[in-house]
Amino acid sequence: MTTPDHHPEPFDAVDIIAAKRDRHRLADAQIDWVIDAYTRGVVAEEQMAALAMAVYLNGLDRAETARWTTAMVNSGTRLNFDDLGKPTADKHSTGGVGDKITLALTPLVASYGVAVPQLSGRGLGHTGGTLDKLESIPGWQAQISTQRMREIMRDVGGVVCAAGEDLAPADRRLYALRDVTGTVDCIPLIASSVMSKKIAEGTGALVLDVKVGSGAFMKDRESARLLASTMVEIGQDAGVTTTALLTDMFRPLGRTVGNALEVREAVEVLAGGGPEDVVELTVALAREMLTAVRVDADPADALCDGRAMDSWRAMVTAQGGDPDSGLPTATHTHEVTADRDGWLTHTDALAFGVASWRLGAGRARKEDPVQAGAGIELHTVVGEWVRAGQPLFSLHTDDPARFDRVLASLEDAWTVTGEEPEPRESVVLERIGD
Amino acid sequence: MTTPDHHPEPFDAVDIIAAKRDRHRLADAQIDWVIDAYTRGVVAEEQMAALAMAVYLNGLDRAETARWTTAMVNSGTRLNFDDLGKPTADKHSTGGVGDKITLALTPLVASYGVAVPQLSGRGLGHTGGTLDKLESIPGWQAQISTQRMREIMRDVGGVVCAAGEDLAPADRRLYALRDVTGTVDCIPLIASSVMSKKIAEGTGALVLDVKVGSGAFMKDRESARLLASTMVEIGQDAGVTTTALLTDMFRPLGRTVGNALEVREAVEVLAGGGPEDVVELTVALAREMLTAVRVDADPADALCDGRAMDSWRAMVTAQGGDPDSGLPTATHTHEVTADRDGWLTHTDALAFGVASWRLGAGRARKEDPVQAGAGIELHTVVGEWVRAGQPLFSLHTDDPARFDRVLASLEDAWTVTGEEPEPRESVVLERIGD
Repeated sequence: MTTPDHHPEPFDAVDIIAAKRDRHRLADAQIDWVIDAYTRGVVAEEQMAALAMAVYLNGLDRAETARWTTAMVNSGTRLNFDDLGKPTADKHSTGGVGDKITLALTPLVASYGVAVPQLSGRGLGHTGGTLDKLESIPGWQAQISTQRMREIMRDVGGVVCAAGEDLAPADRRLYALRDVTGTVDCIPLIASSVMSKKIAEGTGALVLDVKVGSGAFMKDRESARLLASTMVEIGQDAGVTTTALLTDMFRPLGRTVGNALEVREAVEVLAGGGPEDVVELTVALAREMLTAVRVDADPADALCDGRAMDSWRAMVTAQGGDPDSGLPTATHTHEVTADRDGWLTHTDALAFGVASWRLGAGRARKEDPVQAGAGIELHTVVGEWVRAGQPLFSLHTDDPARFDRVLASLEDAWTVTGEEPEPRESVVLERIGD
Repeated sequence: MTTPDHHPEPFDAVDIIAAKRDRHRLADAQIDWVIDAYTRGVVAEEQMAALAMAVYLNGLDRAETARWTTAMVNSGTRLNFDDLGKPTADKHSTGGVGDKITLALTPLVASYGVAVPQLSGRGLGHTGGTLDKLESIPGWQAQISTQRMREIMRDVGGVVCAAGEDLAPADRRLYALRDVTGTVDCIPLIASSVMSKKIAEGTGALVLDVKVGSGAFMKDRESARLLASTMVEIGQDAGVTTTALLTDMFRPLGRTVGNALEVREAVEVLAGGGPEDVVELTVALAREMLTAVRVDADPADALCDGRAMDSWRAMVTAQGGDPDSGLPTATHTHEVTADRDGWLTHTDALAFGVASWRLGAGRARKEDPVQAGAGIELHTVVGEWVRAGQPLFSLHTDDPARFDRVLASLEDAWTVTGEEPEPRESVVLERIGD
């Protein structure tokens, strides 16, 4: 019902909430208005919370999701790198345990003359954040101006930095709101959140690393596939060449979980070594990015011949870091050994992620600090044979009072048995895109 | 997932929101905590908004609804009138157009030695508020202390006043929140809101007037029946003798809509006159209240012999009003006449309610003033024969600029035809309760 007085806004938030509550499609103009009015503070937090729950329970279709994303992009500035004179490509991961891929992937792709505008986040909960990892490098700065970002992309190629306040500000508010209102785990809201930031950052091509498994947001392949295809559709609708890989996150990626520990492992990959699964995934994602911008090359080459490492050193230096500096280590270490001979058949990604978080590598609240040296080193990975007494993994922290609780939480997180496990064919499970 | 830090609250709002979102029953302790924590400001408005939407879409069962109500009662003070030495009974109406029943009913029941603690509200939207109506009596005060309320109940019997801040404060906040989040029209939330206030006001017996029709919250009999039985169950579960009448709100009640206009009609009823439907409903509701507190009498008697009028005069006087004072009238009047001979077969309650509201009798926002004299007099009611040119109804307002818009909105609100309508058997459609 309308009020007798003139209403200066074209819509009333209650009507839009009620429409979605009653399973109607939202009109483009309703979506544009509600996101814009939320950004302006005209639609209140509690109104957006009710709308988010209605969306959670009743969904958004493809057109609604695309429009919602565009509205969030339009709530701030959309960067544009057309004047750089080189193609742009980026990668987004839905978050996993031991996922240090960005660290090696960015300089690797940049070494082929592609600019990578990687606007990244900090860790929250059991998955680490790329900025937290890079901040373990002495001197390295996550906060740089857009002007400086543009210079680094031109001169160096790869840049990993914090998103500015004006990048999809509606998403920033909505993301924080969803976190406290039980509306996180909803495919159209996840997909539009990710894609609004990636479209706004101005990349021309995008590959999505959609993790599947216990340590991932998506626990099963079916929902991961749905999320991936929703994001690919949004990207295509917005003119960004987008593909996705579904990848294994049932076990941690590589042999390290933690900030400095993961940087060390990424540097090993850039030096032509590193764990097989990390190398495989880095190369697969690089191949997607290069193909999308029509660079015909095998990205594995630049890992072997030192070009990716040169690119990494330039990238770290450009943001104030010293690539030759030693990395911080934790003050306390506790080693867990095998209690029998056998095959390591299982390491649970979620449990190791939570353990690393509790050791101090992650944060429970945005304002919490993280420990650079905390985390877990896996001396043995799934599929390897161990003897009783041989080290399985080491816990690292500056706060040894945390060991007991972490060890208790890891009790069911790994299995050593007499039966040899089937080897995993590939960390990449499936590809989605043209 | 729990955070590494100790959490001083026994629950996390997000878990409770997620439980209802995922169609689980809420445990008693979860309901107690979420209502209490909302009252304390620990559960934020946006969290309660998300929970309200989840409840809207996924429901609350009988036990959850009862517990939710009790938790809202327990958020404040529950009044107790056991020491008065007389029984207590009250009535609640879900709101209608021309519903002045409380005005005559309260003194009528009080005249039989029953105390009536009628904590009432103001009008919002197209239904009028009892306090707004009584405030058209010069000198009458809605705000009185609980001590004074108790004295009037002891000495006079009936009291109609504004609810104190400490009466179900959780409901007060939740009601305002639901209004802006599209979560008003939800039976467990409506029922628990009404019943929490009525249980907290300390009445021993309660009759519910659940309106059905265009001018009511419940547009059809089925949903009205569900609301009524939900409220009756809550009352019974809380130890309040509760019954409900479903009553007709397809057309306005009586011959007046507006504040002073309705007081005038209620005084006619107390003087033994008044429109048939108003008298019928007043007596039917009084009978429910008297029966519930085991007073064996015919309430129609007190309307005829002046006892109800004496009780009304004492009640108005006790709250500072002058029962002999004239009532305010609007400065401008516009009369609508029949354009043909025929039977008046239809007057739409919603349209007349909205028209009265727009004439100035109601408010769009809580802080708006109302006009005491504004509203509509129906010179003819459904079932009566009119001649062309004979007055159908008069519009009253202090702001004649409003006439045009109101007249336009009333165009389809009434019908005069050559066909005599079936007479309505009774304004009471159905009774629910033991």
